[in-house]
Amino acid sequence: MKTAKPVKHVVIEDSFWKKYKQVVAEEVIPYQWKALNDELPDTEPSHAIENFKIAAGESSGEYYGTVFQDSDIAKWLETVAFSLRDHPNPALEERADEVIALLGRAQAEDGYLNTYYLLKEPNNRWTNLRDNHELYCAGHFIEAAVAYYETTGKTKFLHIMEKYVDLIQQIFGTEEGKRKGYPGHEEIELALIKLYDVTAKNQYLKLAEYFIEQRGQHPIYFEEERENRKQIQTEPTWNDDNNINFGLGFEYQQAHKPVREQTEAVGHAVRAVYLYIAMADLAAKTGDASLLKACETLWDDVTNRKMYITAGIGSSVNAEAFTCSHDLPNDSMYCETCASVGLAFWANRMLRLAPDRKYADVLERALYNGTISGMDLDGKRFFYVNPLEVNPFQKSRKDQEHVKTERQKWFFCACCPPNLARMIASVEDNMYTQTEDTLYTHLYIASKVNMVLSGQKVEITQTHHYPWDADLTFSIHVVEPTSFTWALRIPGWCKQAEVKVNGETISLHHLEKGYAEIQRTWNDGDVVTLHLAMPVERIRSNALVSMNQQQVALQRGPIVFCLEEVDNGENLAGLRLPKDSLITEEFSENLLGGIVKLTTEGYRVKGSPTLYSSEPPELVSQQITAIPYYAWCNRDKGEMRVWVYES
Amino acid sequence: MKTAKPVKHVVIEDSFWKKYKQVVAEEVIPYQWKALNDELPDTEPSHAIENFKIAAGESSGEYYGTVFQDSDIAKWLETVAFSLRDHPNPALEERADEVIALLGRAQAEDGYLNTYYLLKEPNNRWTNLRDNHELYCAGHFIEAAVAYYETTGKTKFLHIMEKYVDLIQQIFGTEEGKRKGYPGHEEIELALIKLYDVTAKNQYLKLAEYFIEQRGQHPIYFEEERENRKQIQTEPTWNDDNNINFGLGFEYQQAHKPVREQTEAVGHAVRAVYLYIAMADLAAKTGDASLLKACETLWDDVTNRKMYITAGIGSSVNAEAFTCSHDLPNDSMYCETCASVGLAFWANRMLRLAPDRKYADVLERALYNGTISGMDLDGKRFFYVNPLEVNPFQKSRKDQEHVKTERQKWFFCACCPPNLARMIASVEDNMYTQTEDTLYTHLYIASKVNMVLSGQKVEITQTHHYPWDADLTFSIHVVEPTSFTWALRIPGWCKQAEVKVNGETISLHHLEKGYAEIQRTWNDGDVVTLHLAMPVERIRSNALVSMNQQQVALQRGPIVFCLEEVDNGENLAGLRLPKDSLITEEFSENLLGGIVKLTTEGYRVKGSPTLYSSEPPELVSQQITAIPYYAWCNRDKGEMRVWVYES
Repeated sequence: MKTAKPVKHVVIEDSFWKKYKQVVAEEVIPYQWKALNDELPDTEPSHAIENFKIAAGESSGEYYGTVFQDSDIAKWLETVAFSLRDHPNPALEERADEVIALLGRAQAEDGYLNTYYLLKEPNNRWTNLRDNHELYCAGHFIEAAVAYYETTGKTKFLHIMEKYVDLIQQIFGTEEGKRKGYPGHEEIELALIKLYDVTAKNQYLKLAEYFIEQRGQHPIYFEEERENRKQIQTEPTWNDDNNINFGLGFEYQQAHKPVREQTEAVGHAVRAVYLYIAMADLAAKTGDASLLKACETLWDDVTNRKMYITAGIGSSVNAEAFTCSHDLPNDSMYCETCASVGLAFWANRMLRLAPDRKYADVLERALYNGTISGMDLDGKRFFYVNPLEVNPFQKSRKDQEHVKTERQKWFFCACCPPNLARMIASVEDNMYTQTEDTLYTHLYIASKVNMVLSGQKVEITQTHHYPWDADLTFSIHVVEPTSFTWALRIPGWCKQAEVKVNGETISLHHLEKGYAEIQRTWNDGDVVTLHLAMPVERIRSNALVSMNQQQVALQRGPIVFCLEEVDNGENLAGLRLPKDSLITEEFSENLLGGIVKLTTEGYRVKGSPTLYSSEPPELVSQQITAIPYYAWCNRDKGEMRVWVYES
Repeated sequence: MKTAKPVKHVVIEDSFWKKYKQVVAEEVIPYQWKALNDELPDTEPSHAIENFKIAAGESSGEYYGTVFQDSDIAKWLETVAFSLRDHPNPALEERADEVIALLGRAQAEDGYLNTYYLLKEPNNRWTNLRDNHELYCAGHFIEAAVAYYETTGKTKFLHIMEKYVDLIQQIFGTEEGKRKGYPGHEEIELALIKLYDVTAKNQYLKLAEYFIEQRGQHPIYFEEERENRKQIQTEPTWNDDNNINFGLGFEYQQAHKPVREQTEAVGHAVRAVYLYIAMADLAAKTGDASLLKACETLWDDVTNRKMYITAGIGSSVNAEAFTCSHDLPNDSMYCETCASVGLAFWANRMLRLAPDRKYADVLERALYNGTISGMDLDGKRFFYVNPLEVNPFQKSRKDQEHVKTERQKWFFCACCPPNLARMIASVEDNMYTQTEDTLYTHLYIASKVNMVLSGQKVEITQTHHYPWDADLTFSIHVVEPTSFTWALRIPGWCKQAEVKVNGETISLHHLEKGYAEIQRTWNDGDVVTLHLAMPVERIRSNALVSMNQQQVALQRGPIVFCLEEVDNGENLAGLRLPKDSLITEEFSENLLGGIVKLTTEGYRVKGSPTLYSSEPPELVSQQITAIPYYAWCNRDKGEMRVWVYES
């Protein structure tokens, strides 16, 4: 296994991502802080901070919110931790310190820390792992604690969480007297491996391994747990009705079989990818080839059979779940923002395991499309569900009520906005991985970074206007000539790439898993230029995707485009893009924060007086305008469509 | 208003319909009798006869079934009544007489007759018209009683129902002390007008008029009724949860506004068309122009914006309802067999009101497509929901669980099979209407019929092999030369028709609402020939139907075709029908009971290894075979598709 470690401390100078990171720092973090404190008018109350105050004995009242309300605070803290790296803010850091102190005061004597159970069912801890998210919330707090420690060097949060994890490992395990449980919503597994990374304490890796390996062992733990619940006083949950797990059985939680036997992505999409991340992380630590194989098989299944062109996943609102291969409805799907964020995180982990552009291509697809579509350009409104089509009939369709046609201010179940915020705040962590003597460049984001390669300090600067411009420049600074391999990803979407080192063209005949590997002794001031031709491509789906027949999606570089009613009028389904039409690209600085806009001459099928007719359809000329998918619904509300009929 | 009355006593000789009628007489009626008596293995029990026996004090036990279980017996009796006209069967008639006698014994002293309330809630009659179908069941029994009287001349059943109606009219009305209610499921209105037709008792017409006119008057009766229910002991119904009327408000029952103000078809599709039938019937009796206008407006809305090419209606499983204009999903729709049967009945009534081929075209579309698709060719299995597409992904879609991929033996809610049976058993009643001196021929079914025109006896014989053959012959027998107008429908689908009288071509330049009106003095032995060119047509949807873009449906004459997996392999969405491909038609006597089968050379889009690609799709040649839609799923189970991509 050729594992590589992530390169940290990249400083972003990129016009695209700097803006997003600034929005997170200046809008999203303060906005979400207000949400957590119920200070937003006209939105669902959160009560998340208040729950902790009550648990700490500093306020009175009752618990309110979902069973995983705590995790919103965790994701906020994690976002803050990431954001402080490039947006230092002493007042914000002080506020975070105060929240962490509050967590400490709310924590039980024995380390337990979950406000739902502390306040609502103090005697019923660990009795409903299937539904009640205790381990999930713990996982998010662990991730936040690790991030906060890495940014600030402060250990208090880490200690709070270590104390909690110490309790958890007393409760769970295969040893006599312990519960053989594991989370109904995966998350703690990957968090424990992060905790292991910063503490080097093997027990955390072991606990993660236990949770991963125990999953899906028969008899299924959740069955036993349900039986045991009959002995205690507890309220039925949403999942206790006749349709347990939305009719999906234990596939819903990926607990239907042991993880190595799982060859198809099933069940709740966010749960699934969080598990797959942890499996990849564990494989990277242990070198377990069978676990790596399982990750690769699942990756193939998700990305070659169950992923939207936007990197959305989860075809069904029922259980927010994967369905079968090639079932990719564009209007009734789920495509939760969290799921695409999770997919990006998974791709990041696969890149550490085995550098291969197939992972980076999906990572990039997720980053530039189906994740950031979940937020408007000024960071004030959010999509939970990311449709690829908004049709005129949607308003009359109960089966599409979950699909909102405009972003919302906040959600009762507010998992997506903070998840997206933490992804954006840490986007630079996805750019590079390295071994001792090889640097892998996965993403092109204008930035500067320092690292040690072959024992020498190396600084790399990326200068460009990606994803809009095709020409990228990299400059190398070394203290003394240093020999290392620089692997530059040639994106899968790029059919014509050119790499030059100090003006001299490098042959790209032999790419290594999609990477141009330049092995040489680098001198200070060396310049690498990369040309990634990015003409507009007409992308077609596999013939088995019945809903995308005879339609194309426009893609330029990593950006997937869409049509909006505000540019193209009503009934976007009735537009026709001629097979040979010339598509004009134009960078519009003042449109939607600066985008490349596409225009072309196309047609519109003229309406007929009758519903059915044997007359050939009449076409009238119409200009067709496409904008990046991520930027849709930032102007007038209306129809939207990614896949367009070709004629 | 140019009303025409139906011509009765047509004797069918038609190879197409005779077979169906025989299946109803020999298979469906005995099969449904077994169902009503719980004698079918492996099927949902009906308990319908048993409920009546218990109500009559002749058996013990409890009520079982839907609240409208009684109506299954009513529709069975009505089917028997129609079927006895051309399939005399003394044993069956005796059995029907016994059932009628049982109804009489179950009937309460005061005339009340509904086993659900008699057995389950004897003190709560008329307390939940919104949900509990008392008036609906009464309506079906009235229809059956009228049909039985018309066939047999026996009055017992009619008297039972008249006694019940006498009670009903004491209960309901705008007069002081009466309930201002009307049915939650329309049906009794049209039945009362039938009862008026055979009894000439004006009170029945008045009661029908009351129910129709009271509907949708504000304040809405069902609101008051719900309040009143709080005073009594009764079980909550399926409709008492938080989502009353499936979130549709009183549009669900077409009770949102008075009927004349209803301009769009809304709510439950079967309820809707039953109301529209009654409105048309009432308009025909009263000559009320505003009611006729409402019928015409609603007809236009249904047939020009909300009707499938198969004459299916009801785009949504939620509430089994209409949605908005041009929303015609082919895989998740409802298209209940009952709804298309109701649409055919409505077309029949509109033809009486105003002869216009637009009604007959829809009638014919329903008869040859979306109604009879509800039954397999040997009358043993039934579809409730009639999809236009069965896709490979359906098995993983909870939103399509209502769509069965093969016909079922019986249903807990068994409304459709008997509804279809009564339609088939009385199909000949749709063929002709007449005024004093004009005969309208709406349907072409080989047959013989006698009537009086211009005071003279006239016999008309249709000889042909419709819907497969284009040439039809009609012969006229009169006792003495008789002057009348013979209006022959030139179907809307026919672009080239030719009519000859005794070999002499009649000009078709001036059609009257789609009818060739031949006014002359007819002599005995006159022969009319009609040539209705029926090449295979490629039908396209209005551009506003987003789901049918770039697809065509094949239609030949009145028959809509479909592709089945058994003929065409998997992934029917990946087939391409070239715009200019020659389609070969062949009558296959031994295939699916004798059908015209279509074949053509087309293509299949080759699968690609990746999910998305910028490569143009590769096509491989493949023969495409289409069979009539009504006959699908009579061989191997698999995919099916009406709309095919054209390339």
